Amino acid sequence: MDEPWSIGVDLGGTKLEAAHVDALGRVRQRVRKATNIKGGPSAIIEDVINCIWTLRNGVDSSPAGVGIGVAGQVDKECGKVIFAPNLDWRDVPLQNDLQNSIGLPVVVTNDVRAATWGEWLHGAGRGCDDLLCMFVGTGIGGGVVSGGHMLAGCNNTAGEVGHITVDLNGPTCTCGNRGCVEAFAGGWAITRLARESVAADPEGGRLLLEMAGGRIDEINAATVARGVRGGDPMARELLDSVAGALIAGASNLINAFNPCRLIMGGGVIDGIPELIKRIDKGVRKQALAAACSSLIVMPAGLRTDAGVIGAAALAVRSFAK
Amino acid sequence: MDEPWSIGVDLGGTKLEAAHVDALGRVRQRVRKATNIKGGPSAIIEDVINCIWTLRNGVDSSPAGVGIGVAGQVDKECGKVIFAPNLDWRDVPLQNDLQNSIGLPVVVTNDVRAATWGEWLHGAGRGCDDLLCMFVGTGIGGGVVSGGHMLAGCNNTAGEVGHITVDLNGPTCTCGNRGCVEAFAGGWAITRLARESVAADPEGGRLLLEMAGGRIDEINAATVARGVRGGDPMARELLDSVAGALIAGASNLINAFNPCRLIMGGGVIDGIPELIKRIDKGVRKQALAAACSSLIVMPAGLRTDAGVIGAAALAVRSFAK
Repeated sequence: MDEPWSIGVDLGGTKLEAAHVDALGRVRQRVRKATNIKGGPSAIIEDVINCIWTLRNGVDSSPAGVGIGVAGQVDKECGKVIFAPNLDWRDVPLQNDLQNSIGLPVVVTNDVRAATWGEWLHGAGRGCDDLLCMFVGTGIGGGVVSGGHMLAGCNNTAGEVGHITVDLNGPTCTCGNRGCVEAFAGGWAITRLARESVAADPEGGRLLLEMAGGRIDEINAATVARGVRGGDPMARELLDSVAGALIAGASNLINAFNPCRLIMGGGVIDGIPELIKRIDKGVRKQALAAACSSLIVMPAGLRTDAGVIGAAALAVRSFAK
Repeated sequence: MDEPWSIGVDLGGTKLEAAHVDALGRVRQRVRKATNIKGGPSAIIEDVINCIWTLRNGVDSSPAGVGIGVAGQVDKECGKVIFAPNLDWRDVPLQNDLQNSIGLPVVVTNDVRAATWGEWLHGAGRGCDDLLCMFVGTGIGGGVVSGGHMLAGCNNTAGEVGHITVDLNGPTCTCGNRGCVEAFAGGWAITRLARESVAADPEGGRLLLEMAGGRIDEINAATVARGVRGGDPMARELLDSVAGALIAGASNLINAFNPCRLIMGGGVIDGIPELIKRIDKGVRKQALAAACSSLIVMPAGLRTDAGVIGAAALAVRSFAK
């Protein structure tokens, strides 16, 4: 008998990746393309279709279906992409268009939700019915599994864990509010704060500036991560602010959801792995004791593959007989 | 055929209430007692048993079961009360003890979760699959229904919506942290802030002080509510701080859960009903647009009966054939 498999697609503003994923959540083959934003939805959908043909080519059996994670808001019922700012899409009937073209069942979800499916079914969350994923990259996103159900909410936007206010008087956020976790700990915010700190104190910021080739506008979150690893005092001070916000935001979510596992991933966490330990220690002090009595804080297991693996696993769950 | 019914019990630190609730969630009969905390668990359990006998007396049919909401943390599997500070209970096997004594199936839950069951099945949340209840009384508690499931979490503590940090540098809370919603908007916090404000500005606080019979330590949240309704400037300033914290906390929860309905109840909301409108307006500004696009903010429907009605409805759901 042929081994069952499915196709997972991760569609972001920069790149499009599609993978043949087996029943155990292993990537067997993958294809990547730059996202052709200028060509509009039809050009991108054509690229997705071509990637799917490439993956099917030479495989005798048919995949159970296609799962696709998109960086945007998705209609739960019909798989339409309501709004995807990074793709410049509004109201694109992605599920319908893809299904009609490839003759396979398609399920569309948000990219961070797809990554949460991946971590839940094949990553750090395996076997756990109550978990919270926080992915800390340029932005901060996440997903929540509670009582064995992936939470979707009323408009399919549940799990917006980046825009949790932790300081009513804090720095401004891209969402228009002040003091969101993301405004302290998202990659863009770390970059902003680091440049401001170096500008305000050039002597203290000497090492960070050096690492950025002497150009303040080349300092970014990765520079700070290198500074932290090198023991630079200013970088470590910046880290305190990042950690403080993540601890406060995670504590809020732990009190609200009471997860068994808090799974942390994304570029900022990968760049500064000690954040996991600090968050672990911090939330136990800050969240309610009963809400963390069984909590484990752990790094994500699938790294950048979480999206394609999760989208493929969602397709299996939705369509496999 | 006899009409099906069940018994709901609301066990708090001050009073114990039990009610005969019919299949439509209407209270047909009720009994109340002061909670005999000094007598320890056995005295309270005996009082509960007596209340249940009173309610069964003269009714020909047997209830489907008993639901009991307790102000404390409850073990999901065995219905043991792990910790109930207001009752001074630790590890009391309430479900087991009651079942053995009364020969009816018993389900135990947290008191605020019971009230959420009530609002969901028979109150403001009827027919809705995604809702968030916030009860703002002396403390702040709540419950969450997502995708038609009441969230419980890993240790049955999901829905702790009072200890959401909204200001890392804010006032101290009873939980040991700073700037929780409850530390601004819980009844005890309003009382604290009002007394501090009057002490700092006796002239501005003249009316509040007068309403409390000239004694600053008699000022409480109800005094502030009366001052708000009377247009007192200091009371209205205090209200701004309460509303701001509730808006920030509710926005965090709306982003995280994406509910269709935000249902607000409890003494503080009942005392200052204009809070509902302010919160409605505020969350639409502060939460993400996609997360509130279908949101309705509304007052709780069952007032102080939510607990017994919800506990009884949970019993029906758990035991009715």
